[in-house]
Amino acid sequence: MPTQRIVTFTTDFGLTEHYVGAMKGVVYGINPSVTTVDITNVVQSFDVLDGAIAISQAYSYFPKDTIHMVIVDPGVGGPRRPILATVGQHIFLAPDNGVLSLVYEREERVSVRHITASHYFLQPVSATFHGRDIFAVVAGYLSKGVELAKFGEEITDYVRFATPRPKSTAPKAWKGLVIKVDKFGNLITNFTEQEIPGLFQTTVPPFKIRVGKAEITRMSSSYVAGAQGEVFAIIGSSGFLEISVNRGSAAQVAAAGKGSEVLLMMGQG
Amino acid sequence: MPTQRIVTFTTDFGLTEHYVGAMKGVVYGINPSVTTVDITNVVQSFDVLDGAIAISQAYSYFPKDTIHMVIVDPGVGGPRRPILATVGQHIFLAPDNGVLSLVYEREERVSVRHITASHYFLQPVSATFHGRDIFAVVAGYLSKGVELAKFGEEITDYVRFATPRPKSTAPKAWKGLVIKVDKFGNLITNFTEQEIPGLFQTTVPPFKIRVGKAEITRMSSSYVAGAQGEVFAIIGSSGFLEISVNRGSAAQVAAAGKGSEVLLMMGQG
Amino acid sequence: MPTQRIVTFTTDFGLTEHYVGAMKGVVYGINPSVTTVDITNVVQSFDVLDGAIAISQAYSYFPKDTIHMVIVDPGVGGPRRPILATVGQHIFLAPDNGVLSLVYEREERVSVRHITASHYFLQPVSATFHGRDIFAVVAGYLSKGVELAKFGEEITDYVRFATPRPKSTAPKAWKGLVIKVDKFGNLITNFTEQEIPGLFQTTVPPFKIRVGKAEITRMSSSYVAGAQGEVFAIIGSSGFLEISVNRGSAAQVAAAGKGSEVLLMMGQG
Repeated sequence: MPTQRIVTFTTDFGLTEHYVGAMKGVVYGINPSVTTVDITNVVQSFDVLDGAIAISQAYSYFPKDTIHMVIVDPGVGGPRRPILATVGQHIFLAPDNGVLSLVYEREERVSVRHITASHYFLQPVSATFHGRDIFAVVAGYLSKGVELAKFGEEITDYVRFATPRPKSTAPKAWKGLVIKVDKFGNLITNFTEQEIPGLFQTTVPPFKIRVGKAEITRMSSSYVAGAQGEVFAIIGSSGFLEISVNRGSAAQVAAAGKGSEVLLMMGQG
Repeated sequence: MPTQRIVTFTTDFGLTEHYVGAMKGVVYGINPSVTTVDITNVVQSFDVLDGAIAISQAYSYFPKDTIHMVIVDPGVGGPRRPILATVGQHIFLAPDNGVLSLVYEREERVSVRHITASHYFLQPVSATFHGRDIFAVVAGYLSKGVELAKFGEEITDYVRFATPRPKSTAPKAWKGLVIKVDKFGNLITNFTEQEIPGLFQTTVPPFKIRVGKAEITRMSSSYVAGAQGEVFAIIGSSGFLEISVNRGSAAQVAAAGKGSEVLLMMGQG
Repeated sequence: MPTQRIVTFTTDFGLTEHYVGAMKGVVYGINPSVTTVDITNVVQSFDVLDGAIAISQAYSYFPKDTIHMVIVDPGVGGPRRPILATVGQHIFLAPDNGVLSLVYEREERVSVRHITASHYFLQPVSATFHGRDIFAVVAGYLSKGVELAKFGEEITDYVRFATPRPKSTAPKAWKGLVIKVDKFGNLITNFTEQEIPGLFQTTVPPFKIRVGKAEITRMSSSYVAGAQGEVFAIIGSSGFLEISVNRGSAAQVAAAGKGSEVLLMMGQG
């Protein structure tokens, strides 16, 4: 057990209220020598997939035994279970609503417990803020070395959803979608090497992508290799195909956004 | 005196400039082994009540002897005093403009000092950024164990304002207001158990609330217990009555916002 | 070498994605006992000058040997070099695009290395996220005490640009610009004591400033000394002349913003 443990935060609580601060207060109140790190607290409100993407892109870089709180919890106060998952070499605290699905996908070893040890919880437990009253408390005690088994029994029927994948619509044609628009206006699609390995090679065969009002026929090896105002495709740092503009917003230029359809046709130039 | 001290930040300095970073630099420059935690740096600009709400909802979860900087300071450079307050088991640094009022309300023990020990300050002290030149410096030295009394004399005429409370307008009728809209669009009102204990019981008597264009007659025990699109009332995690929508924004649905009137009538269903 | 090192973040990666979280994961993955501090991660996208201003206003308050990551990197994946600079008593990691120019300006001692030690990098290095794959890794190893010389050779032809300065347009007349609008709506201009020492004295001679639709003839010693709604000039905490409104937004009142022209005429009252 390391002497200094890290607790990360991936939530949709935002930055304008005290919510994340109160959670951190609970963690430090239990273990003042813990280290806390924000992954993002601006997950889109109630958007479990958005939270699932954020944590899946960041967790693996942290040291092993890091405790990741992933609190995107539109079902708080309802029947959904609070869970404690050991996935690969990391520990996760989350509502059992699938927000860990993309983490489960990436690791062999998954062990999930239903958190039931209510004597640890802040009492009275509110019906609206389990991030503070349940999850932060458990994170605090975990960071002090309390054993996982103390918090509840293992379960196997935890919720996991499949990432939305592009669908083949015709020979050499697929329909995917924009799963995220980042701060720069890059359109992050759900196309990965798995569907279209050809696009992820050094020499890319002819293709055409349509998204919003943009038509893309060129893959760029970097943002900066794009011409001024040109909309191009690029393999992003997350392994997804992105639609981008050099020093500009592809979302604006293509008039597209989260959920927009992305049509890919191979063999046309 | 603990060996590792925590300094928290509640400010309206925002996240797009260097302001909070410079303050943290000052704190770490004096005590490199301190821990800093943001409660929120996106308090509404110049809004002392908004800052007062944020700190009052978060401070008590931190370990005792935590140093809380609460810098919402529209009067910076004017005659308002910089203060150092011991309230309950916590230490606060703030301008003396009432931003600690809701903290004072919650604790028995309040001791306030006027910070005058200018030999600690960054010189020359700017007229516009005491967060950096005065408060951060004092936080740094406090975190290293310098005694409170070194920074100035106790005062008793510090500023405190009363939280705006709902007013009784007729038998069984009250007029309150929305004091905050959170990131989810929940309308946080100033109704608490103190005014309307009945609403905070398990069995709620008939009532009607009007806010914006919404009329609410149901209290929900959780966000998720609301029907699709329904606007309902709920006891929030902060002890205030909230107006909410399950997986939606009550602010949008009710077309209401900060400062909106909230009318409550008991005994109607 | 201090036992606990600080790594700061000044980036345009924003707060809504995992980008900064992944970078911090890399740093903690290499050195779990490091301390990380955000200066700002909301630099305007692709805006090297905006990043240059932010870091130049904050770095000097941190302890010596702090490692400052300044990743505003529109040229990522292109020929621009990753650099490691020792400037004064601080260490900087940045793309070699001039983002450190305002830091170089403030210090005598500047030594810059081209980071080439690719055996440290995360492999495969992406073409779009050197913040994670190169800079965060180097920050992690630096924080553990790896010598600067291990990362690459010194260079002297690093990029530096001159801060845009006001120009004299006639005797006693200058044209400058708004380089930043802060969260409060203060218009931060590029006028400093260097151009117009008279404005920075205790007794200010008559002057007139025009910016947007505002005309300013008064210098205020503090925000709070301004009359309700009055637009005035003030020496900001960063050493720049600011145009401000007491408890209001000068940007709104003057209908001006980043890049707006600022005309100054001395000797008129």
